[in-house]
Amino acid sequence: MLRRVLCTVLFVGALPSLAEASQGHISVVLLGATGDLAKKYLWQGLFQLYLDQVSSGHSFTFHGAALKALEPGQRLMFDVLKKLSCPPDESPNRCAVLKDQFLKLSQYHQLKTAENYTMLNREIETLLRQEGLKEAGRIFYFSVPPFAYTEIARHINSSCRPPPGAWLRVVLEKPFGHDLESAQQLAAELMSFFREEEMYRVDHYLGKQAVAHILPFRDQNRQFLDPIWNRHHVERVEVVLKETVDAKGRTSFYEQYGVIRDVLQNHLTEALMFLTMELPANVSRAEEVLQYKLQAFQSLWGLERNSAVLGQYQAYASQVQEELQKAPDYISTTPTFAGVLVHSGSLRWEGVPFLLTSGKALDERVGYVRVLFKNQAYCTQSETLRDAGHSQCKAKQIIFYIGHGALNTPAVLVSRNLFRPVMPEGSWREDVGQPDLRVFGQPLSDYHVYVPVKERDAYSVLISNIYHGRKDFFITTENLLASWAFWTPLLNSISNQPLRLYPGGVENQHLLDFEMVSGEVAFTVAEPMELLNPSKLMPSDYKTIQAKFRQSPLVSAWSEDLISQLASDMEKAASRTVAHTGQFHLALSGGSSPVVLFQRLARHHYAFPWKHTHIWLVDERCVPLTDTESNFFSLHNHLLQSVRVPYFNVHPMPVHLNQRLCVEEDRGTELYTKEIMALVANASFDLVLLGVGTDGHTASLFPHSENGLEGAQTVVLTESPVKPHQRMSLSLPLINKARQVFVLVLGKGKHEITTLLSRVGHEPRKWPASGVSPSSGQVVWYVDYEALLG
Amino acid sequence: MLRRVLCTVLFVGALPSLAEASQGHISVVLLGATGDLAKKYLWQGLFQLYLDQVSSGHSFTFHGAALKALEPGQRLMFDVLKKLSCPPDESPNRCAVLKDQFLKLSQYHQLKTAENYTMLNREIETLLRQEGLKEAGRIFYFSVPPFAYTEIARHINSSCRPPPGAWLRVVLEKPFGHDLESAQQLAAELMSFFREEEMYRVDHYLGKQAVAHILPFRDQNRQFLDPIWNRHHVERVEVVLKETVDAKGRTSFYEQYGVIRDVLQNHLTEALMFLTMELPANVSRAEEVLQYKLQAFQSLWGLERNSAVLGQYQAYASQVQEELQKAPDYISTTPTFAGVLVHSGSLRWEGVPFLLTSGKALDERVGYVRVLFKNQAYCTQSETLRDAGHSQCKAKQIIFYIGHGALNTPAVLVSRNLFRPVMPEGSWREDVGQPDLRVFGQPLSDYHVYVPVKERDAYSVLISNIYHGRKDFFITTENLLASWAFWTPLLNSISNQPLRLYPGGVENQHLLDFEMVSGEVAFTVAEPMELLNPSKLMPSDYKTIQAKFRQSPLVSAWSEDLISQLASDMEKAASRTVAHTGQFHLALSGGSSPVVLFQRLARHHYAFPWKHTHIWLVDERCVPLTDTESNFFSLHNHLLQSVRVPYFNVHPMPVHLNQRLCVEEDRGTELYTKEIMALVANASFDLVLLGVGTDGHTASLFPHSENGLEGAQTVVLTESPVKPHQRMSLSLPLINKARQVFVLVLGKGKHEITTLLSRVGHEPRKWPASGVSPSSGQVVWYVDYEALLG
Repeated sequence: MLRRVLCTVLFVGALPSLAEASQGHISVVLLGATGDLAKKYLWQGLFQLYLDQVSSGHSFTFHGAALKALEPGQRLMFDVLKKLSCPPDESPNRCAVLKDQFLKLSQYHQLKTAENYTMLNREIETLLRQEGLKEAGRIFYFSVPPFAYTEIARHINSSCRPPPGAWLRVVLEKPFGHDLESAQQLAAELMSFFREEEMYRVDHYLGKQAVAHILPFRDQNRQFLDPIWNRHHVERVEVVLKETVDAKGRTSFYEQYGVIRDVLQNHLTEALMFLTMELPANVSRAEEVLQYKLQAFQSLWGLERNSAVLGQYQAYASQVQEELQKAPDYISTTPTFAGVLVHSGSLRWEGVPFLLTSGKALDERVGYVRVLFKNQAYCTQSETLRDAGHSQCKAKQIIFYIGHGALNTPAVLVSRNLFRPVMPEGSWREDVGQPDLRVFGQPLSDYHVYVPVKERDAYSVLISNIYHGRKDFFITTENLLASWAFWTPLLNSISNQPLRLYPGGVENQHLLDFEMVSGEVAFTVAEPMELLNPSKLMPSDYKTIQAKFRQSPLVSAWSEDLISQLASDMEKAASRTVAHTGQFHLALSGGSSPVVLFQRLARHHYAFPWKHTHIWLVDERCVPLTDTESNFFSLHNHLLQSVRVPYFNVHPMPVHLNQRLCVEEDRGTELYTKEIMALVANASFDLVLLGVGTDGHTASLFPHSENGLEGAQTVVLTESPVKPHQRMSLSLPLINKARQVFVLVLGKGKHEITTLLSRVGHEPRKWPASGVSPSSGQVVWYVDYEALLG
Repeated sequence: MLRRVLCTVLFVGALPSLAEASQGHISVVLLGATGDLAKKYLWQGLFQLYLDQVSSGHSFTFHGAALKALEPGQRLMFDVLKKLSCPPDESPNRCAVLKDQFLKLSQYHQLKTAENYTMLNREIETLLRQEGLKEAGRIFYFSVPPFAYTEIARHINSSCRPPPGAWLRVVLEKPFGHDLESAQQLAAELMSFFREEEMYRVDHYLGKQAVAHILPFRDQNRQFLDPIWNRHHVERVEVVLKETVDAKGRTSFYEQYGVIRDVLQNHLTEALMFLTMELPANVSRAEEVLQYKLQAFQSLWGLERNSAVLGQYQAYASQVQEELQKAPDYISTTPTFAGVLVHSGSLRWEGVPFLLTSGKALDERVGYVRVLFKNQAYCTQSETLRDAGHSQCKAKQIIFYIGHGALNTPAVLVSRNLFRPVMPEGSWREDVGQPDLRVFGQPLSDYHVYVPVKERDAYSVLISNIYHGRKDFFITTENLLASWAFWTPLLNSISNQPLRLYPGGVENQHLLDFEMVSGEVAFTVAEPMELLNPSKLMPSDYKTIQAKFRQSPLVSAWSEDLISQLASDMEKAASRTVAHTGQFHLALSGGSSPVVLFQRLARHHYAFPWKHTHIWLVDERCVPLTDTESNFFSLHNHLLQSVRVPYFNVHPMPVHLNQRLCVEEDRGTELYTKEIMALVANASFDLVLLGVGTDGHTASLFPHSENGLEGAQTVVLTESPVKPHQRMSLSLPLINKARQVFVLVLGKGKHEITTLLSRVGHEPRKWPASGVSPSSGQVVWYVDYEALLG
């Protein structure tokens, strides 16, 4: 039958002779050929590909596939194909002829069993042999639910691979997992069937014309953007996708995903990366683009619970109850609105807020990526007497307008007082639009406005890029996992968060406005009308509790609240001490628990008197300071590089002397002791921060240690039961000279030792942590609920 | 006669009996009693003081004084006094009675000779004795030209001091010098006559109600301001005084001073200090206020030539020619407009631009201090559908409106979406004004607006504060000198700067708009209509010249341009090297020349790849690293503390080991050598920055040094002819292994050695600098015009 189709094609003579198709033949297999996405976008995209590439030297066949039997499937599919429309810029005659050809080159297959796949493969091979065609490659487009991926992938891998020399491209549609772990699992499965370069994961936003033009725009306008595309000039970046529709009819999907997984983790994050990544020398080299994009992911700050504000439209609960047959007391914790504050730690973007916002049931449908520049100008003339046309004091912005909203077209807007951008003439044209229309606080006449010469559907853009092998328009495995690694901690931490209920539509008014406070976000309207709080705990219930532990003050809370409290207490202690003595001697422990504390201090405690603080180490591993295992390295990474402690006030432990590590003759302990004696009055630190190990160790003082638990030594070398074994540590007697000691204990894993410590007396040889009791100072225990209550 | 006056006063009975005046008697002496200032403001202020304090328990006499003889002086003075007006809030009856008394308590004195002063003193003493009055104090108000200060001060000091137990307050009017040196001289003279606490230097802006309320406002609104009064929330601060008048008729004064000395150095700077200083716990303690204000001065960054944009209105030149009888080719270099960008390095304000602007012949008369906050909010609802009344997305500002302009009254404006301020009810009242009037981009209805309950003239406020001994309303010597120390470098550096000519009035349009670029300012309209350039050099003439010096490339320019060029070249070298090898090893010299370079690198080179740069020292003095003499200390202060070089990449020279300095057995040189060997490939630095001493030394390699000029040593101890004698230095052979060496030579003092070096060959023993010739690298000489041309 295929033979016959091709013969007909050749007969009408509108196609190049297949023998002349020197670039070879491409077989496109659309799995899920009769599904919604295929009907709505994919067949049209494939037809567009055919229109565009019919003279490229490649020949094509299109294979629709589904689980349905041949006859009904065929009928369904051809019903769709008959409705394919010709693009407006195509001559109707040519289009009619080509549509006819496209239909003849298309056929339906039932793909259900292993045999079906083998058969498909055989048919393709037969055709190619009969026509004497070289095979260029095969595209398999998975427009099927994710649960079907593995089996289809297995069949393709075992039966449908093209012969050596021809490529295989499998196109995958989201969702690609629902958190880091599931995404890793799915990725690992796929990797067992396909090589990385064979997989094309679709995020259809990358095919939206305005998003796809971000990188080319940055590239073509380097001369203007180079000096201003950084934290010194950019005030903020907004990446927004607002919808008016709600989730009605789709709650079975939505209830599992919610707005962050549905929109932010993929579409908005991808757009943001194009905006913030370093610009490769050549933006058309996919390899380089992908690598730079990955680096942009890596410089993002981790998200915390308060990085997001979350809402749910009021009708959602009843929609879920109805559609999913839930009990009337079922409460959904799925957010339908999210505003998230993202920060990058890169030198270029440090401090610039990136605001990602999306929601359903909002006042308007619109999507945009907006870069707002700082006003660097002072206009001497009074506003009323100013010639507004040339004012440098008006807002300066660049907006990649994805679509809908007031403009109702994809567009690129550049404030006229910024520069006249270079735009590729063939694909974008300048457009005046309605000059008085106000967008982003200004009339449209304040902008250079560009719209696509030809509006193209995202899928048609992406299908073209699959054909061209432009992997930078797709999500690589590394990229996908980097994005999930970024979002998963937030998703985990908000699972119990209260959601703000909103009425939906214009009624929302200011209820979903939010603002940034010390690197976090909060709704601006302080008293919401109603809070949807599944755990029935009000925020005040999360407050820290205060009690006693080992006869000393105990502060306890969920770990995140505990860390905030500890950081605040440290700042208070520091400020008080500096006000009093002019300096603050702070000794910090290594290990993983303090990392979150360090980050919190770096990001939220602007008023910490770092300039007058001396940083000492409580303990150190005997590795070079630049080794990632080094406590100092971690401290530097998470805290010191973000704050302004004078060089002279930083006191790493001298574990690395004379090119060797912790050798006694090098007298590192003596050196550190001398440094302490010289700078710290009475060798009494103002504050020592300790942790506790599951074995009861604290600092690097392990049970039954020969050194450091008693006696006159101040700094000692010790042996750890775990690698790296050699350590340097402050001694217990020195620690007990401190004015204040804070002990931080986090996590379920510490429950047993916490319970034990709450009962035992002063037995430092068995449990060094039980020996912490400053002779004339105070100890405060910061123990989270998990460690305290198990 | 005085006796008679007092009797009359007692007779009418409206004054408290002088015997009851238990607080004692105050004599006010107004020098220049018939001058313009006295006529216009001072007598009225003294009368107001009398009205306010007549029941305070103090008794008063007022002594007008001038050079004029008794009779005409008396007549002139009483003509003024008769015209004194009663304030509107005073009952006409009471005022008429008190005015009558005030006239009777006032008398005229000729004060010309030493005898006149002795006589005045005797009269005061006699009165007090006769009336049995205790003396509280004496106020001498100098309303005379500054050239007369010294003599008057000498007379007062020698003849008119009150007896022990009573105070002396002398009130001085600006100008207080015209640069740091002249101000120091004047201050020193005054200090030989008066104690600091006796001097009240007037800046009448401190008496303007809106300016005087800045500190009280900050104090009373601490709860709202504490979290936002910092760089994280404030976008910019504008301190502005615009005038419509020009200098016509006053050019003899103006031509000597110009706008910076006339307005910025005093009024605007003072207002800025009130805004930026740390807030004392008790703002009514003058001592503390003054101390905190001084600290605010000390944290200001130094101004550079490009910290200011300058203009002159077109008619100024002809006004000067006419009024000062100058030749037609006389060109005035006096700016009548200035926009200055000021930065503070304090933790609170770092990075916030403070824009000080003032000019004559502008479009409107207005003065204000405006704090614009960053927009921290994201408003989810579309602009058009938003309830504007509650939007957090509108601009947030606090404005201390000094007067005139659209409001035509002193006022305090606080954006309604910020907070409702606490205002002292007795002195400020809420006012609606014209709600639609647009001020600072918004209708007045967007603000809480407060105006004074009673508008008070600045002099009346100040005279009251002199009476109350509120020294924080006046300029202390330290304060004055700090301000001049801040402004003088700019004044010096702009003396040859081109001025932008502006037509004056509304015609100026955007000609005086300016914008910030990398910490500097420039006019936004790039092509001015005309430049007034006294030296007839166009900016392009300042360009660096390129030639050869000692067979190597030479870059020469005026020192500031040279430093910019050098900093740019260093950044380029760094970026290139990092792109190539991943790191950049930079060795820097100590001394004073590089300080400006360091500052420039810190403030203007955001893109410098600091994260990948290793910082080495070329040489070091044998002092502790925290000693201000230490090269590293200076490097840290001016560069390292402002950029982000990782701790591990910073390599100070180990001059301080085992608590002692540069002792050979401590093997510091060996230690540094090992560090270099371990990290720098082939011990070949990517860039070494050197200087040259007048004796031809470079690094710390002095003529005829035994170490370091040749041989295999890499790091050496040397002896300097000047203190501190002991030094550590890289050796010449090591320096000559570098890939690039930049030698920076600045100033007239280096002309001789520069000339010599241009002639001699390779003679490192005589002139170590002549030995700089990298064996496989390049040397570039950066020599400024003064060093090159003398």
